[in-house]
Amino acid sequence: MFDLKKSTSCGRNGEIQTPHGNIPTPFFMPVATAGAMKGITFDDLLGLGADILLCNTYHLHLSPGENIVSDAGGLHSFIRWEKPILTDSGGFQVFSLENIRSITDEGVAFKDHRNGNPLFLGPIEATNVQHKLGADIIMCFDECPPSTAPRADQIKAVDRTLKWAKQCKEEHERLKVERKSSPMLFGIVQGGLELDLRKKCAEELIAIGFDGYALGGLAVGETEDEMVAVLQAICPLLPENKPRYLMGVGELHQIREAVRLGIDMFDCVSPMREARHGNVWLSEGKKLRIRRQEFQNDHTPIDQDSPAPTSRKHLKSYLHHLLRIGERYGETLACLQNMGVILKHMRNLQKEISSQKI
Amino acid sequence: MFDLKKSTSCGRNGEIQTPHGNIPTPFFMPVATAGAMKGITFDDLLGLGADILLCNTYHLHLSPGENIVSDAGGLHSFIRWEKPILTDSGGFQVFSLENIRSITDEGVAFKDHRNGNPLFLGPIEATNVQHKLGADIIMCFDECPPSTAPRADQIKAVDRTLKWAKQCKEEHERLKVERKSSPMLFGIVQGGLELDLRKKCAEELIAIGFDGYALGGLAVGETEDEMVAVLQAICPLLPENKPRYLMGVGELHQIREAVRLGIDMFDCVSPMREARHGNVWLSEGKKLRIRRQEFQNDHTPIDQDSPAPTSRKHLKSYLHHLLRIGERYGETLACLQNMGVILKHMRNLQKEISSQKI
Repeated sequence: MFDLKKSTSCGRNGEIQTPHGNIPTPFFMPVATAGAMKGITFDDLLGLGADILLCNTYHLHLSPGENIVSDAGGLHSFIRWEKPILTDSGGFQVFSLENIRSITDEGVAFKDHRNGNPLFLGPIEATNVQHKLGADIIMCFDECPPSTAPRADQIKAVDRTLKWAKQCKEEHERLKVERKSSPMLFGIVQGGLELDLRKKCAEELIAIGFDGYALGGLAVGETEDEMVAVLQAICPLLPENKPRYLMGVGELHQIREAVRLGIDMFDCVSPMREARHGNVWLSEGKKLRIRRQEFQNDHTPIDQDSPAPTSRKHLKSYLHHLLRIGERYGETLACLQNMGVILKHMRNLQKEISSQKI
Repeated sequence: MFDLKKSTSCGRNGEIQTPHGNIPTPFFMPVATAGAMKGITFDDLLGLGADILLCNTYHLHLSPGENIVSDAGGLHSFIRWEKPILTDSGGFQVFSLENIRSITDEGVAFKDHRNGNPLFLGPIEATNVQHKLGADIIMCFDECPPSTAPRADQIKAVDRTLKWAKQCKEEHERLKVERKSSPMLFGIVQGGLELDLRKKCAEELIAIGFDGYALGGLAVGETEDEMVAVLQAICPLLPENKPRYLMGVGELHQIREAVRLGIDMFDCVSPMREARHGNVWLSEGKKLRIRRQEFQNDHTPIDQDSPAPTSRKHLKSYLHHLLRIGERYGETLACLQNMGVILKHMRNLQKEISSQKI
């Protein structure tokens, strides 16, 4: 369920309601790929203000497998995370694989990279796996070409994405009855940078009817202007009373701009990945390359005003030292900092919208 | 300062007093090699009951270097650990190096493994480095052959260790005045499995006079009976009113036996190393090889009665999954469990001694 509370020139305030709690929008979802965050405990993550976790269906399907997760009572029980969870469909991952054997209208055949065993993921399979995992929000299986791929590829991808979206919806409705549970199912708008294809995809998904709408295939090589053009063309077409999810975007200024254009949900691995490479985010966009020599003797806190207690306590010189020698605790400290900053950014955006006159 | 409170047939109760707090004995020191624990925050470590941390002089000397640590206000300020810290002398590490260029009566010349730069560590250098680091307890620079090395090597090592111990003590006394700080300095008894050499080493160290006495060169290949024989021969010779430190021993049953024989202090990397290899310690010695297939579908808590909250919350099947796929959070969970168990073991031993009639 989604409750739109306010729509302003700087964004939308709303609330997604799930059996595992309600999430104020706009929000950012930390990515716990196979059900865990590198070097961050869930208690730390909750302390930083995370309201929802994203897990990857592809990784969980491979290991431990949805049946083991289901035996444990579903993903919330298995990973011991009590707040809402969103799972992606696995589409993005299988289309990125090197071991693809074939892509047909039924889905993608690929090899297990660990043992060469043949595997298959399509709309029916992805929907079943996600229902077994038991997330609160699940995604349609889509074909995801690079945003900069040629128009012919985008046409094919949109056609398949729409065909698969219908199948996902049908399987989802069947599983809702069979399993007596009602996760939200989101459709994914593809079409690259071809605005007419994006519009067609959005309109046909809306005709099928989903609990929310995502924009896929962005933040993968196009310019910011190109991304904004897609948002400007598509957001006005989407139903007001459904949440909107921009997949894979995690730069603070891009999030701000997308929220302004009407986006409610985000996910990205970049806060964690940049942390591991020593790129420390300060509030509102400034970044420190903490491995640089200038921080070797800088005995001031990592971020005096950080939402992460570890960053108010620990020194830049200490973090510099740990990352320079490859000591894992350095990555933990940087991850806590970046995650704290992006989650705080979302709370700030929520407040700005709240205080905005319509 | 050491205050011996009680000496019984199952061990000694005492207290080491430092400017950073008092530590009840017997205790175990988690090893934060370069000033950090892999995957465990200091807050987590404090929550598990750690009273003191061990840091390695060799690693901190190489990076960030004692001058940077000193600029930050010493090790406690640099790593933001407010309780006591012990630093080793670096001797054990430099004698284990492959890049040793020469060993003389002045110390060990070796190459920096990162850039080939010539480095040198001897009794004077190690004592100066440790004073600059600013730990509460520091160690003499010793020569540490394997316990099973031939008698001729042990004789040489004891002679050098004694010569260096005198130099460390003199330099230490000079630095105490110069720097106006008074860390405790421990002597290290060497001699391998040659009991007469061990006795000679102990007696001459006692004649020099130290704030505590360590047994080095054990837990490196000899049998448990051989280790016990050394403890039985040496502990009775050591002054009652000084703390006794058995270096590198971390097996729960060996700790229990050594405490019974009069040892007060322990350190070991094994709780963390075994955790990283999927060897999960339960209370009082039982170990689970959590990667084994039998735990794939075991949806019970890692350890229902664990001192680590994460082990009471998370499932064996989840930990199995994370370690099987190499997900770092698995190591964190296993480290918290093993560290929790060994620290609880020490509290149990303290209580057993307290409740023991003398």
